[in-house]
Amino acid sequence: MSRKSAETGTAIGIGVGPGDPELMTLKGARLLSEATVVAYPAPETGDSLARAIAAPHLRADATEIAIRMPLSANRFPVEAVYDRAAAEIGTYLARGQNVAVLCEGDPFFYGSFMYVFARLAENWPVEVVPGVSSLTACAAVTGSPLAALNDVLTILPAPLPDDVLRTRLAETDAAAIIKVGRHLPRIRALLDELGLSDRAQYVEHATMDRQVVGNVSDISDAAAPYFSMILIHKRGAACS
Amino acid sequence: MSRKSAETGTAIGIGVGPGDPELMTLKGARLLSEATVVAYPAPETGDSLARAIAAPHLRADATEIAIRMPLSANRFPVEAVYDRAAAEIGTYLARGQNVAVLCEGDPFFYGSFMYVFARLAENWPVEVVPGVSSLTACAAVTGSPLAALNDVLTILPAPLPDDVLRTRLAETDAAAIIKVGRHLPRIRALLDELGLSDRAQYVEHATMDRQVVGNVSDISDAAAPYFSMILIHKRGAACS
Repeated sequence: MSRKSAETGTAIGIGVGPGDPELMTLKGARLLSEATVVAYPAPETGDSLARAIAAPHLRADATEIAIRMPLSANRFPVEAVYDRAAAEIGTYLARGQNVAVLCEGDPFFYGSFMYVFARLAENWPVEVVPGVSSLTACAAVTGSPLAALNDVLTILPAPLPDDVLRTRLAETDAAAIIKVGRHLPRIRALLDELGLSDRAQYVEHATMDRQVVGNVSDISDAAAPYFSMILIHKRGAACS
Repeated sequence: MSRKSAETGTAIGIGVGPGDPELMTLKGARLLSEATVVAYPAPETGDSLARAIAAPHLRADATEIAIRMPLSANRFPVEAVYDRAAAEIGTYLARGQNVAVLCEGDPFFYGSFMYVFARLAENWPVEVVPGVSSLTACAAVTGSPLAALNDVLTILPAPLPDDVLRTRLAETDAAAIIKVGRHLPRIRALLDELGLSDRAQYVEHATMDRQVVGNVSDISDAAAPYFSMILIHKRGAACS
């Protein structure tokens, strides 16, 4: 967060929320309506989800920078793609233009924005507008509190090894297992082993038209996309 | 979530975000502009923060229900207060009116909404509109990612005993210690002991005018309000 001056622009990471375009913040919507340069993550071909969520607020004359991830590496950050995106964004910042960088959910909660952020923050002022994260959106659509009072809540990426997941799940009061995707069969076996399946709610595409919510035991293995989550509360959040 | 019918209203828990009124969602703002009955948490005397955040969107003709917490029990849920609030909200639901129930941050992330929710959900349809949580708002104002890739992120309420906090902090990649308040000296000693102080950012009143952000070592013990948080990432979220 350096080089802040009257001459340079600011990169503004904007969390556009979990999917429902109405779950964008008023601040995000306002900043987008003012933004003359907008960058967003996108697949190698086709539409960007972040851009689709933000679409109602984008200026018709905005310059758009799609940060396209190659299909062959679609589950991993790719150095060169982010290097190039940061350089392109930097050309606008150098001219004194602000650049809005869109991110699904919240920019600092396991988002791909962080790869761009790390590069930009070395050279430019960066601000972040928080958004509704997938974590609380998933809880909302299950209709069950995440955590209350003195609950320990643990966020666990599904790609972690079984022994790590087993230990952490055994210790915590509540957990969110994120990035479930192809790990669903393994996670389900683990939850069965720990006697937690009855309390495990599965959610994919929370707040979107194609939303799926159900007990983890009722979900087909084939169905889980990368952006799916399992929420577990061992006792039900204590709130009586 | 029962008794849903054409005759009864729905209780809608609305997360109004962390403090900056612009961090309310578009959906929250729309629902408030339509709400004829609005309930919110409030101190025994004086103004409600949740109401203040929502104020620009409230109808002038809305019926307001302040759920006032007695001063003598201001750090604990009080059964009778929530019982009475749920009963009062229920009288409107029974007549077919919807009731918006405001909550600071997100309704299902350690919020007081859950006490009202638990009571209402026994008898009435309840929906939840997620909001920007204090968790991601605090990360945004520190300018540091919460977690990335396969990081384990643990949410730890400060009132937990030292040994629990010590064990959990030792194991996790990143942590948010919430509800710091009067526990600040104890938490700071613990972070010193674990060698984590250099990486611990303290935040109070995130996104509000009276916001405080700084390294935990630089904060006066006397200063911490109940709604304060310490964010720790052991390595810095991996994002290069």
